[in-house]
Formats: sequence, structure tokens, C-alpha cells
Amino acid sequence: MPAPESRAEPGPVFAIGGAEEKVGRRTVLSAFVERAGGDQARIAVVPTASSLGAEIVAVYDTVFRALGAAEVAPAAPATRADAQDPALVETLAKATGIFLTGGNQLTLSSVVAGTPFGDAVVAAHRRGVTVGGTSAGASVLSSHMVAFGVGGATPKQRMTQLAAGLGLLDRCVIDQHFSQRNRYGRLLMLVAQSPSLLGVGVDENTAAVVTEGHLLTVLGRGAVTVVDGSAAQSNAATAKRSEPLLVSGATVHSLPAGSVFDLTTRALVHGPDGKDQT
Amino acid sequence: MPAPESRAEPGPVFAIGGAEEKVGRRTVLSAFVERAGGDQARIAVVPTASSLGAEIVAVYDTVFRALGAAEVAPAAPATRADAQDPALVETLAKATGIFLTGGNQLTLSSVVAGTPFGDAVVAAHRRGVTVGGTSAGASVLSSHMVAFGVGGATPKQRMTQLAAGLGLLDRCVIDQHFSQRNRYGRLLMLVAQSPSLLGVGVDENTAAVVTEGHLLTVLGRGAVTVVDGSAAQSNAATAKRSEPLLVSGATVHSLPAGSVFDLTTRALVHGPDGKDQT
Repeated sequence: MPAPESRAEPGPVFAIGGAEEKVGRRTVLSAFVERAGGDQARIAVVPTASSLGAEIVAVYDTVFRALGAAEVAPAAPATRADAQDPALVETLAKATGIFLTGGNQLTLSSVVAGTPFGDAVVAAHRRGVTVGGTSAGASVLSSHMVAFGVGGATPKQRMTQLAAGLGLLDRCVIDQHFSQRNRYGRLLMLVAQSPSLLGVGVDENTAAVVTEGHLLTVLGRGAVTVVDGSAAQSNAATAKRSEPLLVSGATVHSLPAGSVFDLTTRALVHGPDGKDQT
Repeated sequence: MPAPESRAEPGPVFAIGGAEEKVGRRTVLSAFVERAGGDQARIAVVPTASSLGAEIVAVYDTVFRALGAAEVAPAAPATRADAQDPALVETLAKATGIFLTGGNQLTLSSVVAGTPFGDAVVAAHRRGVTVGGTSAGASVLSSHMVAFGVGGATPKQRMTQLAAGLGLLDRCVIDQHFSQRNRYGRLLMLVAQSPSLLGVGVDENTAAVVTEGHLLTVLGRGAVTVVDGSAAQSNAATAKRSEPLLVSGATVHSLPAGSVFDLTTRALVHGPDGKDQT
């Protein structure tokens, strides 16, 4: 008889592009609470990326409760030692939703990834828990995490770097504040160097919600941009210093709310009105 | 026996993305003077787009002479009546190079396009004269000219508009200050609405030099981004107000200096080192 885990569907993953509405319509956070269980939701807030730990937890506590969550509690490892503390790891055991705040994604990955706490986030996702992150908290969700970097539409050698994220989403790299901070160039650079990764750029107040591990649905005000370098010609292997890169033949998908995209087949499932477009 | 015109090759067209170096290396303007005849060059400067007419002519006069041009003279219609003045039109007759400054491209198109002066620019190009424009002066070179608009990587309905340019370059729309002003979104919007047009975004201090009417060579510091919407699915025909647009499956080419791209076949000819890349 299989263990319960092996029969479970992985939970939805909310990669939020930062600056999601916390008052007013709150489309993105409201959907997160709903998927985490609505009035049954028990949400753990992980503020590790942020330098404003208690303050940011208090904000999400207020917002998630206003949106109907039953319980909200911090789960706040500040060091790699904390992230191995069984009591802290245990705070995730009952959660139906885990939310990673913004801040510095390298703080988050270096404190949490590959620790019992990080493993508990991954295990929770696998057993069906809804996991979301905004800004830095979105970047860390993918296996390959963008870190540092500069803006600009033109891809240039060395304009950004990769580190290892939590890996809830595989074979992709998530970037955030995408349109607002002009991050086309760095995403093109990443997929030119690593065409096996799909670049996923999420606008502010917008979420890429991934279900069944591969179906990306767009939610919120802006768009999600998917950049596919698998057919591109590039000199990314040989370009020197910070030269502009040749990236010829990349495929781009700009997906507004309601669009569904298959990360495995790298193709549009349907557009914002639920139908194929021409 | 054919008229001399019909045997002539059209001259090179320099679409410059604005902010080209006027001191120091001056790669772009130096190439323009060279193609216009070097020490035999007679360059007409058209400052119509600019509100700083005499001042901007004086700057280009200084720079073009420093780069070795034999003669530099203004050709400055300020109104549509001016643009029909035979004496003013005549100033273009001896030019081996015509240079359109930056400013407001709608001023340039509305004063010049479809007048004897505008027709003389087109005729000069067809008989082999080198025609260049920077910023607004680059936009007006194409048949379909981008005008107004907002920045952002995400395409949104109505984020920019088209007007009729001079038409030296056909079947494309040229945008400028491309990376610096984050103009991916508006170029994607344009090619989603008009996939017969190729979107050409030129970075600052960079030129798209088009020879033989269809071969685009990149010159200068940044890159030229070509956006091809011919295979894209889009809801551009039906999206409301300023909604983010679905544009799924557009092809993007980011081309650094030295790259050559064929505007007719919409394919890379070779990369920056003169060879095909992988």
C-alpha cells in the first residue's frame, strides 16, 4: 500500500511578482488564501528574506485574516542553525499554506535551502500544501534562482547570476517585478546560457500559479512573460565581459490574466478568455 | 534605355537609437560620414523634429566636419509650406548624405511626409544617397511610424500608436531608445496588431544600418532587437481598454554589433563574429 504522500497531488505554487495589493481588490492574495483552504486556512509566513521580519509578518497576518484565513503564524528562521531547529520545522507541519515574503532571495536560499526547514517546505508542497512567494520569495521557488543583476531590454553577458533555489518548480527560472524593472535582457541572457530552463518573468501585482507541477495560470493586474531559448542561436558561451549577447530566435509568450501555459510542452493552452486565439 | 535611377542601388539607411556619441569614439556617426562619402561627403542636416533647430544643426555641423565631411548644411523646413519651397527642396539635390535629428517624430512626419521635400528624401535614398536619422529621426524612416506611448515590458492595448513615416524602410516599424526606455511591450503590441510589420528596436548609441533594402547590420554599443509576430497567437483584435495583451509565440532576435539580419526572410544571416552560432 503506497504511503499517503505518494498519492497526493503537489499543491499549487504562487509565484508573485512583488507589490501585490494588500488593500482593495487583493486578487492575488485572496486567491492564495482561497487555495490554502479559505476559512480553514492555516498560513505560515516566512519572512526570512526581509530585514523587517516582525513588521512584515504583522502586515501579512492582518491581510490574510482579513481575507478569511483561520490562522496565521510566523515561521521565521533567521540563521541556518534556526532552520535545523525541530521546533521551528514543526511549525510547518500543520500549515495548509506557506507564504515567503520579499526581500533578498540569497538570504532566503542561503538560510533555508537544503536544511530541514527548506526540506519541510518542499515536502509540504508535495503533499498538497499551497506555497506562495512574492518578489524574492517568488524567485526562490524555482530550482535555478536569479540573483543580483541589472535591468535593460538588451541581454548582456554577466548581467545577472544564478544560485540554487528551493526547487518547487523545476526546469525554470522565475524573475519578478518584470515589466516594472525592465528585466527582459537578463531573462534572455539566462535562457541563452541555459536553454533547458524556461524563463518566467512575473509582473508586479500578478501571479504565475502553477498547478499539477506544469500548468501555469496567470492571475492579477499585469502579465507573465515566458521566454523560451530552446530554438535560439546565441554566442552566450563565448561572449566576453559585459558584451551585448546575440540571442536570435527566442520565443516569447506574454500572458495576461486568465491565460494558461504548459511549462512542460512550452505551449499556450488557452488565452485570457479561455479560448485559442488567432 | 532605363533612367539612371532604375539602375541605382538604394543608399544605406542608418536608423540610430538616439544618444549616439558625439565625442570620443563616435562609431555610429563616423560610419555614417564614411558611407556618405567620407572627405567627399556633403551632408544635409534636417532638424525639423527638434525644437532646438539652429543649435542642433551647429552640433552636427561640428561633429560631421570633425569626422571629415566636406560640407554640412541645414535643410530645415519648419512648416508644410516650407517643405514645398523649391529652393529648400533643391538643398537636397547635391547631398550625398541626409541626416534627420531627434525631437518629435510627429512634427517631422507632419511637416515633411508627402511633400516635395519628403519625396526628395525618398528619391535621394533611391538613387543611392545615405540617409540617417536618430531617435525621432530613426522612427520616421519606416513606412509605419511609432508615435507617443508608454514604456514597460508587458504589451498592453493602446500603449502606443502608429502614424505614416517617410517609408524608406518598408514592412517594419522602428523604435528607439529601446532598452533604455523599456519599449519591449509597445513593440510587441504593434507586431501583435500588425504581424506583417517587423518590429525593430534600436538601443541608444547603436544603429541598424540597412543596405540593399533588406540587410540589417548592427553597429555601436548596444543591440538591435527584432520582434517577429508572424507566428504569434494574440487577442490584439479584441482586447479592451488598456488590458495586457496575449502575445504567445512571438520570435525575438537580440542582435549585437556585427550581426547581420535579413528583414525579408526574417532570419539571422550571421552573428557578431561573422559566423553562425549554435
